[in-house]
Amino acid sequence: MLPTVACIHRGLFRSCAGLSVRMISRGIGQKGILANRVAVVTGSTDGIGFAIARRLARDGAHVVVSSRKQQNVDRAVAALQGEGLSVVGTVCHVGKAEDRERLVDTVVEHCGGLDFLVCSAGVNPLVGSTLGASEQVWDKILEVNVKAPALMLSQLLPHMEKRGGAVILVSSVSAYVPHVELGPYNISKTALLGLTRTLSLELAPKGIRVNCLVPGIIKTDFSKVAYKNEVFWNNFKEDHKVQRIGQPEDCAGLVSFLCSPDASYITGENIAVAGFSSRL
Amino acid sequence: MLPTVACIHRGLFRSCAGLSVRMISRGIGQKGILANRVAVVTGSTDGIGFAIARRLARDGAHVVVSSRKQQNVDRAVAALQGEGLSVVGTVCHVGKAEDRERLVDTVVEHCGGLDFLVCSAGVNPLVGSTLGASEQVWDKILEVNVKAPALMLSQLLPHMEKRGGAVILVSSVSAYVPHVELGPYNISKTALLGLTRTLSLELAPKGIRVNCLVPGIIKTDFSKVAYKNEVFWNNFKEDHKVQRIGQPEDCAGLVSFLCSPDASYITGENIAVAGFSSRL
Amino acid sequence: MLPTVACIHRGLFRSCAGLSVRMISRGIGQKGILANRVAVVTGSTDGIGFAIARRLARDGAHVVVSSRKQQNVDRAVAALQGEGLSVVGTVCHVGKAEDRERLVDTVVEHCGGLDFLVCSAGVNPLVGSTLGASEQVWDKILEVNVKAPALMLSQLLPHMEKRGGAVILVSSVSAYVPHVELGPYNISKTALLGLTRTLSLELAPKGIRVNCLVPGIIKTDFSKVAYKNEVFWNNFKEDHKVQRIGQPEDCAGLVSFLCSPDASYITGENIAVAGFSSRL
Amino acid sequence: MLPTVACIHRGLFRSCAGLSVRMISRGIGQKGILANRVAVVTGSTDGIGFAIARRLARDGAHVVVSSRKQQNVDRAVAALQGEGLSVVGTVCHVGKAEDRERLVDTVVEHCGGLDFLVCSAGVNPLVGSTLGASEQVWDKILEVNVKAPALMLSQLLPHMEKRGGAVILVSSVSAYVPHVELGPYNISKTALLGLTRTLSLELAPKGIRVNCLVPGIIKTDFSKVAYKNEVFWNNFKEDHKVQRIGQPEDCAGLVSFLCSPDASYITGENIAVAGFSSRL
Repeated sequence: MLPTVACIHRGLFRSCAGLSVRMISRGIGQKGILANRVAVVTGSTDGIGFAIARRLARDGAHVVVSSRKQQNVDRAVAALQGEGLSVVGTVCHVGKAEDRERLVDTVVEHCGGLDFLVCSAGVNPLVGSTLGASEQVWDKILEVNVKAPALMLSQLLPHMEKRGGAVILVSSVSAYVPHVELGPYNISKTALLGLTRTLSLELAPKGIRVNCLVPGIIKTDFSKVAYKNEVFWNNFKEDHKVQRIGQPEDCAGLVSFLCSPDASYITGENIAVAGFSSRL
Repeated sequence: MLPTVACIHRGLFRSCAGLSVRMISRGIGQKGILANRVAVVTGSTDGIGFAIARRLARDGAHVVVSSRKQQNVDRAVAALQGEGLSVVGTVCHVGKAEDRERLVDTVVEHCGGLDFLVCSAGVNPLVGSTLGASEQVWDKILEVNVKAPALMLSQLLPHMEKRGGAVILVSSVSAYVPHVELGPYNISKTALLGLTRTLSLELAPKGIRVNCLVPGIIKTDFSKVAYKNEVFWNNFKEDHKVQRIGQPEDCAGLVSFLCSPDASYITGENIAVAGFSSRL
Repeated sequence: MLPTVACIHRGLFRSCAGLSVRMISRGIGQKGILANRVAVVTGSTDGIGFAIARRLARDGAHVVVSSRKQQNVDRAVAALQGEGLSVVGTVCHVGKAEDRERLVDTVVEHCGGLDFLVCSAGVNPLVGSTLGASEQVWDKILEVNVKAPALMLSQLLPHMEKRGGAVILVSSVSAYVPHVELGPYNISKTALLGLTRTLSLELAPKGIRVNCLVPGIIKTDFSKVAYKNEVFWNNFKEDHKVQRIGQPEDCAGLVSFLCSPDASYITGENIAVAGFSSRL
Repeated sequence: MLPTVACIHRGLFRSCAGLSVRMISRGIGQKGILANRVAVVTGSTDGIGFAIARRLARDGAHVVVSSRKQQNVDRAVAALQGEGLSVVGTVCHVGKAEDRERLVDTVVEHCGGLDFLVCSAGVNPLVGSTLGASEQVWDKILEVNVKAPALMLSQLLPHMEKRGGAVILVSSVSAYVPHVELGPYNISKTALLGLTRTLSLELAPKGIRVNCLVPGIIKTDFSKVAYKNEVFWNNFKEDHKVQRIGQPEDCAGLVSFLCSPDASYITGENIAVAGFSSRL
């Protein structure tokens, strides 16, 4: 099968000229803090994943953008390249072994190795309740949200070793404060807190850190159902003294930090970007 | 399909004459604190599950014993009936829809309803590592340890409603302190902490409480690999100031409490029976 | 100094004839599960502490009741003795060294040793905010809520050793879900979660277990400000799916369990009695 | 009011030309990410506090350095000024009201306001055990480690408002995994986790975020007793798969992030810099 790589020639990454807003404001030149590093961000053609991909690219990394649909990949890649950033795209449904394999091929072919894996892809079928969820719903949620990050990392690991990189999983505050209408989604997100911990132990001897972004209510299509429900949103803000909705860029800021040398002694942590915290 | 019930006649539960050690020592008569209540304990033909089944029966409950193999069910039922306890057995691989259905049939036919569900069945393929686990290993662990309790409860719920019962899931301290060699097992046990929380919210309006037993190292076949490893076990005891290995009866004591009226305002809690605690 | 013991003669505890409601309903005779054990419950002349004292006495224990005011001690002792329970009272402001010493004297003189210490005394000056709290407010809250339980236990420990007893501290769900108007109180209650953990390690080698009751909103004078505020209480119930207010007896049920042999492998745990849970 | 830059007398802040290693490697010019911001770091004349002060100054902030002894303050200030950083020093024993007042005066006089408060001062009398600790030991530890940060913030708050700043408390992993020999210190550090949560709620409406650095074993005088104990340190590394000792600069990296706009939606969080994590 031909790689569904969005923009092709090998020389691509060399032309990296993207700068993060922060870098620009500080007068940084061509090289960012992640210069010459390679990042894969799954589920990165919109929302939080897109913001992360953009930020890591602005920090100087070569970024592999992906999601399930070719046209979304094309659009995201075009947008980021239009900003002068070094990105390549590939279609990847993280729940499919062959798609994961193709993503690995893209990494190997275009980047020669990998430093950072950000597992932003996820599903939320909004099942209504845990007890109303069918086996099919459970399978899909556990497959995409829990198994896929582990399997993806397994396949990419041979290309990460000896580079001392970082993995970032993406959970949700509903892992801690379950939302009764999100059913199995809550549970999959709690599982990710554990996956972060276990992977951090497994990969510590290889010098790879594993941490977890725990977003609160972030302004994305996904969260519309929450923040557009005025009663819910007002209660939520009042309960937790949250002052504003989160932006995808807020999440990207944490991921940028977790990939940076400043975070080199942080691993196994689950960190909320939520305008509040829900645990000790 | 005929129920594979181990000991058959409908009158069975009426002869309930089991007494818990605690009740005997206190001179309690025929009626225990769970008299006339009905409990299902999955994975209850040996180890922790067996101790729980015995304890609930000694507390006066009619108990449905089950596990994957007919001969194990027969042996457990015979042992408990030999103690004068009111039990019935049925083969049930919790990961199989038809087995769960058969267990529901047993409950309906023999007990007329259900008060307590204790999900003790679980698998631990000892995969070595998360990243070494195949899709098949992941599927099996998530299916049996996470999905099955939720699906079992879904199927039993119509027979629990209006009785104000309780559900007890069984996690593990490895949910909090992951053991690097237990890979996906750790993650499945963390997921159960979240399942407890979400189910407790879903079922609160129905008057059903959901809590979670979090065993430490308990003297069972399952844990042999840990406590028979002298270096591991001595370090573990020293690290956590654990004074002795846990007994299955220690776990059963908590479950008995969680089913009792004394625990009627406790729900959503994950409680360690481990000789130590690992979180705030 | 003469003991300010409320009800005097040494033979008192031998006449123990109190029965818990549960025991009565089960037809238990003279001996309860805590027969011949001795318990101190501080802050036990009303509310949660009083319910705990009553429950432990009904379970068969000899109970030392105490709080700051003689008349409250007298009233509580009279009420419990009126139920045929074996109690003795002593005035004790837990923040005062001499009062703690007097309580120790009472234990030694009347009971010959101690099995259970339940630290229910506490203050909540309702300061409004953490940042508005004066040094005096901080000192009082930390002294009574955090230091006093540790110092009390230090003084009583010589009389507990070799009896394999249990200590129960009393925190609050505001330790996990801080209430913005309770200021330093929240922090003192979080500190108790840590005190439970550290004490459990220190005392494990002595066979003494240390756990923590974490009450939610319980129907007491203390909580009136919460549950009588209709807007707050309705939101709280809706947020956490709490179905009813807690009763002091709900708390007493957990303490009874934690003192019993059924909990002999549970230590270091913080357990909410709140109609919901707020952490994994 | 005088200009915000504290170049008043002594010429102290005028020579501000310090650049963080990270900034230098990226070719950043005069302005860092915290340019024109003002930070107070207590307990900052050596160890973690010193590294934080240096880092914030390298990020462009004007930093007020302080600790209990004049000669330590002088040495630290000289060292940082020698690097071209903009710092001013003041003696401050955080447990003394008049010292806190003097620090407030320094902030007002030299800086015209405050953006960041990092409470790094703390005591650890190494008491051996909780139950062996005298009232004096308890008082000292709670005063310096818990009350002082709250009182300091109360006094500085009028000068922080309307600047949208950040507060960082400094706890310890012993807050989660208590070290049996550190007694009351553990409890004071757990209390700080709660203080972070409560303060974050109180200050959210003012646009001030409050987070907590949770150091593991960091190479400082304070931790020598741990990492120079070979048996302890080797077990610790093995238990948690920690690969190296932490450096004060690792802690400073997190604080720098938490003060930056990238963390503007993070508040109430307790984040470990420990080479491992100990909670979900």
